Amino acid sequence: MLRRVQASVSKARIQFQLWDGFELNPTAGYPIGRLRFLNRSALYRLLWDPELNFGEAYMAGTLAIDGDLAEVLEEIYRTFGDPRRTWRHPYRRHDPRAARANVHSHYDLGNPFYALWLDEALVYTCAYYATPESTLEQAQRAKLDRVCRKLRLAPGERVIEAGCGWGALALFMARHHGVRVRAFNISKEQLAFARERAERERLGDRVEFIEDDYRNISGTCDAFVSVGMLEHVGADQYDVFGTLIGRLLTPNGRGLLHFIGRDRSAPLNAWIRRRIFPGAYAPTLGEVCDRILQPHALSVLDVENLREHYARTLDHWRSRFDAAEPTVASMFDERFVRAWRLYLAGSQAAFASGWMQLFQIVFARSGSVNVPWTRATS
Amino acid sequence: MLRRVQASVSKARIQFQLWDGFELNPTAGYPIGRLRFLNRSALYRLLWDPELNFGEAYMAGTLAIDGDLAEVLEEIYRTFGDPRRTWRHPYRRHDPRAARANVHSHYDLGNPFYALWLDEALVYTCAYYATPESTLEQAQRAKLDRVCRKLRLAPGERVIEAGCGWGALALFMARHHGVRVRAFNISKEQLAFARERAERERLGDRVEFIEDDYRNISGTCDAFVSVGMLEHVGADQYDVFGTLIGRLLTPNGRGLLHFIGRDRSAPLNAWIRRRIFPGAYAPTLGEVCDRILQPHALSVLDVENLREHYARTLDHWRSRFDAAEPTVASMFDERFVRAWRLYLAGSQAAFASGWMQLFQIVFARSGSVNVPWTRATS
Repeated sequence: MLRRVQASVSKARIQFQLWDGFELNPTAGYPIGRLRFLNRSALYRLLWDPELNFGEAYMAGTLAIDGDLAEVLEEIYRTFGDPRRTWRHPYRRHDPRAARANVHSHYDLGNPFYALWLDEALVYTCAYYATPESTLEQAQRAKLDRVCRKLRLAPGERVIEAGCGWGALALFMARHHGVRVRAFNISKEQLAFARERAERERLGDRVEFIEDDYRNISGTCDAFVSVGMLEHVGADQYDVFGTLIGRLLTPNGRGLLHFIGRDRSAPLNAWIRRRIFPGAYAPTLGEVCDRILQPHALSVLDVENLREHYARTLDHWRSRFDAAEPTVASMFDERFVRAWRLYLAGSQAAFASGWMQLFQIVFARSGSVNVPWTRATS
Repeated sequence: MLRRVQASVSKARIQFQLWDGFELNPTAGYPIGRLRFLNRSALYRLLWDPELNFGEAYMAGTLAIDGDLAEVLEEIYRTFGDPRRTWRHPYRRHDPRAARANVHSHYDLGNPFYALWLDEALVYTCAYYATPESTLEQAQRAKLDRVCRKLRLAPGERVIEAGCGWGALALFMARHHGVRVRAFNISKEQLAFARERAERERLGDRVEFIEDDYRNISGTCDAFVSVGMLEHVGADQYDVFGTLIGRLLTPNGRGLLHFIGRDRSAPLNAWIRRRIFPGAYAPTLGEVCDRILQPHALSVLDVENLREHYARTLDHWRSRFDAAEPTVASMFDERFVRAWRLYLAGSQAAFASGWMQLFQIVFARSGSVNVPWTRATS
């Protein structure tokens, strides 16, 4: 068995050390990092179900990784390639009740926790780095600005935001573009923060933060925007989501979807779904076109892939997270710290290696007479 | 039957006149235009198979249209909506022999004919109007430049162009970006023009115009580009086309596809296929993602929809065509003039009304380390 493992890992510039000191791949030296299996069970479980048990072992502390975690993971991803995942680990459903549980388990971990490592406005989605040297704060602000410019918001227009996080985009749109926003979310912690901030910044008359499932959004809007929520909608609800957009948008309205995607249709890693994002799914661009936009006569105007920007964003989050580890450990425990360290580093590696994509799609109704002549300003 | 027609046309701001002088929709006045059926058979045939026989009747002269043809057609398209077309009119196959016949019937009509109404470089694809006031010549040059910047061509790189038309892009890339180009085409007339121009401009050492089917392209390239050819590839050959791209592209190569697309999967109008573009098909963005790019681990970096630019391009072509009608009639006949007038005006109306899209997709291999940081220069 060891020989099989050795043959399959010999291409990676990574060393492997077993519980008894035995080393696999010693000829690779120690160029990028080292995986240390602290007991026999960790190795066996990994071989049995690597997708799930790599993360389980790292979280449990029976698999240690030396070197920069994101670099080691990127080396592994690039060496072994994006696995042809099957649906071995089934998906949860995405009805409103399940959606609430899914969201609660991740986004209601406490605002003080997220404040330790996100930017000051708590923007928990891919930033836009006009130059690679931008700070996280600059890049998140640039992202908010870019989303608004892509939507070509005009003062007095009505915007609906599905999945508003801590409210940064909704408040930015109202403040800088004079629009009225109805922003929906089912995370109580996030909404409490967003409402408090709206009051403090005297934007409460223009931004309404609503605790409700996206499926219950009513009315119409000149612009529909959803940043980092589609991943939680679930493929079984794409028709529902597309129907919603088709119902909300005025004849000349615009929409923007910002979401984590993939080049190939496959389930999200099972460990991420078990420990980090229950029920999450990252669609291909084709799936979003075919299953959300096409059936509802919505026309794609513009697509931008920002995967490198998400790798950079995650690198920034990770630095802050690492620096705050003692605090995180005191809030939760070491197991939690390891799980989140792996999630952040693994995500960074996934975007850097091209396993994951970050798409921004701008769309309008087919035949809209209100499409921009060029994308010069976005 | 007339009542049924009357009910269905009453929303369009168009008058209908029958062979005996009877008018349908007279209350609409004459705001946009008038359709005149010159005999009973034209009306019956239209009702029997409008998709095919609208064009047949116009071409035969038994259906006359008063008013600006593109405006009348846009009014019809917008009023009646994009029909849910079935596959009633079957498609031709797209093997190399059929492809050659399809291409010959359109692109080998004679270079002097196309010179009457295209720009001076004979660019027969959607232009890019940096401002709506650009001339056709400016806009075609801007398009060539934009394609090159999206591909980030560097001096000395090797480019493969599939479907090179009269060679304008291949020569532009070699002249302005110092690349070496192998440009493929199966239209003899176009190739003769392209080769002659390459010699005259002393670019023959950097641009090779090759008469061969795209399926026979061998070797590798740093950039793959295809502008206005995918429409002729045929959906049954998408896997072949994707396999080709996957084989040609170097690990850090880039690709660009520029093609007429649709928001919804449907066959192209049967009359267009019979009289103008045999075998042509305009795919959805999702079909191109799912069937050409995804199976070959190609990652979408950027998509731009330029449908309004194609409506403008067609408006420019149409003005020149109209001015050259006597010459065209002397080269062919009045039937040909009417068919091409309808094709150009109908296409303009289709892009203006949103029935048709024009997509430019930039892609790279999944995980390429050579993706641009931003699209700022394109």
